Amino acid sequence: MKRKSDKPIKITEVCLRDGSHVVAHQYTEEQVRNVTRALDDAGMHYIEVSHGDGLGGSTLQYGRSLVDEMKLIEAAAQECKRSKLAVLVLPGIGTAAELKQARGLGASLVRVATHVTEADVSAQHISIARELGMETVGFLMMAHMAPVEKLVEQAKLMESYGAEAVYVTDSAGALLPHEVRERISALRESLDIEIGFHAHNNLSVAVANTLVAIEEGATRIDGSVRCLGAGAGNTQTEVLLAVLDRMGVNLGIDIYKMMDAAENVVGPLLPRPQDINRGSLVLGYAGVYSSFLLHAERAGKRYNVDPRDILIELGKRKVVGGQEDMILDVAAEMSKAQRLGV
Amino acid sequence: MKRKSDKPIKITEVCLRDGSHVVAHQYTEEQVRNVTRALDDAGMHYIEVSHGDGLGGSTLQYGRSLVDEMKLIEAAAQECKRSKLAVLVLPGIGTAAELKQARGLGASLVRVATHVTEADVSAQHISIARELGMETVGFLMMAHMAPVEKLVEQAKLMESYGAEAVYVTDSAGALLPHEVRERISALRESLDIEIGFHAHNNLSVAVANTLVAIEEGATRIDGSVRCLGAGAGNTQTEVLLAVLDRMGVNLGIDIYKMMDAAENVVGPLLPRPQDINRGSLVLGYAGVYSSFLLHAERAGKRYNVDPRDILIELGKRKVVGGQEDMILDVAAEMSKAQRLGV
Repeated sequence: MKRKSDKPIKITEVCLRDGSHVVAHQYTEEQVRNVTRALDDAGMHYIEVSHGDGLGGSTLQYGRSLVDEMKLIEAAAQECKRSKLAVLVLPGIGTAAELKQARGLGASLVRVATHVTEADVSAQHISIARELGMETVGFLMMAHMAPVEKLVEQAKLMESYGAEAVYVTDSAGALLPHEVRERISALRESLDIEIGFHAHNNLSVAVANTLVAIEEGATRIDGSVRCLGAGAGNTQTEVLLAVLDRMGVNLGIDIYKMMDAAENVVGPLLPRPQDINRGSLVLGYAGVYSSFLLHAERAGKRYNVDPRDILIELGKRKVVGGQEDMILDVAAEMSKAQRLGV
Repeated sequence: MKRKSDKPIKITEVCLRDGSHVVAHQYTEEQVRNVTRALDDAGMHYIEVSHGDGLGGSTLQYGRSLVDEMKLIEAAAQECKRSKLAVLVLPGIGTAAELKQARGLGASLVRVATHVTEADVSAQHISIARELGMETVGFLMMAHMAPVEKLVEQAKLMESYGAEAVYVTDSAGALLPHEVRERISALRESLDIEIGFHAHNNLSVAVANTLVAIEEGATRIDGSVRCLGAGAGNTQTEVLLAVLDRMGVNLGIDIYKMMDAAENVVGPLLPRPQDINRGSLVLGYAGVYSSFLLHAERAGKRYNVDPRDILIELGKRKVVGGQEDMILDVAAEMSKAQRLGV
């Protein structure tokens, strides 16, 4: 495999953070310990543990965690012999106090996440993370929503605040391989820091997108064992490792142990199969937040409009999280247009 | 999307044939009618109906069908208003008599399938199919096992026998995107007939491989709704259609209807989730037949060798179907080598 970076590739396993969405944030301490132990034993580089929406996400709005995430972070830290512990924080949800607490419990890397066009809100958190001596990574979510130049501009902002790496985060699983290629390539040419890539498998191209990202020079890669992440899940970690191995890229992570962790430790935690069903496919196809799905189904029923048409329209209008009330408006508009035969 | 062929792309849905493996060949007539009706209504081009191992496959060795496949073919033919009916035949298993019978019941396309290095056994079946006035397609299975030049040579043989298209059939789900590219590209340069591509998703790259195949000029593409095919399934049809649509390629198949068929008609038939588990991943990683999995697990237990090591060794030795007795030999050898510390 030809790579445009000679830096080592570092994997961050997100099943205990992105996967938290799938289990409705009901991870127990024992589950987190078992998964962490298995991943650490396989030699995983980083293991991310946080509420699905990052530190402080346990709220009525985002879903309450069964167990205080600080307890889960502490438990994971105790199980890590080789792996480093990562946390996610979204400015506006997670605070500096929570970041400090996580650091105190053993987190050594933080991803500071914003919408792809709102990097400016990450400045303070990035700065605090650096002061805390944490490895500090920017995370540009819903990356498919911004044109390439905008993405580059926002990544450069994060770099200027002190981020040591910036991720292209395909939250909606909407990017296709050629779109990943142009984004990673543009960042590679414009930044001096490492580039990361975080995929979702809603269009069944997460592994392929990740291969393209690595070819173009991304060195920070997210995966979720057994696809345990929101929607259809992320890049399936053990599959990616097997494919990279076949391409002559060995990351020092034991593939058999990862396969066993997937089958015996993570598999039994899945509340439903992480295959691609109609819901996850529509999210990727429309390019919208997974939280929109239920809203669109309700609005569709109320206004007699196909929820898929609503989601596709929301995708076109680039509606983002926090604008959920627009879903009813869009449905009402579409229903009216239908009646008028427009 | 840039394509190296200007011929229209034709999809063959294989969930009622490759998917027959997943349900242990227990399809009922009602199930076949319901699936066919949904696919036909969506505008699917071809629907393949046969035992998983092709016409005549209902045997003790390959697994007995619940319902005589001729009854299923007849039922499917009655439900097809727009779709054409396809069958699969492996010379040595299916006979000319069975092919004639299927033709009489309404099958208009046949894929004549051989191991990638054994195209010569397809001559008679291809010739008979042409005489029967059927659209006749060659199907080179386990395509990853032959070097590119060998694959081209075998495809040219099938062309010389009268095949109107030849498929690269990645039976083990072992090919990676760059390997698909070089294979389809080489065939495109050497053949005058259409090229096809049949994927399995064991390494999570079936959709990506199919996109590469289409770019390189493949125009005959297989998919299975909801991934209902052997191993981790095939290229998930409704996902492929959504992705192609996003790339500006419309095949005249209704994507919403395909999504609904996947969710409401095919989904309920799945005996287990078609996600990528340890078993299917190992098949793709080792590049071996799915039927080897159980044999390797038994041999591994008997000789105290990791079944994955056995499968990888079988892949290296290019062991094919019919050589199952080699599995015990390989396991015994490896066990001895382990004891001797070799």
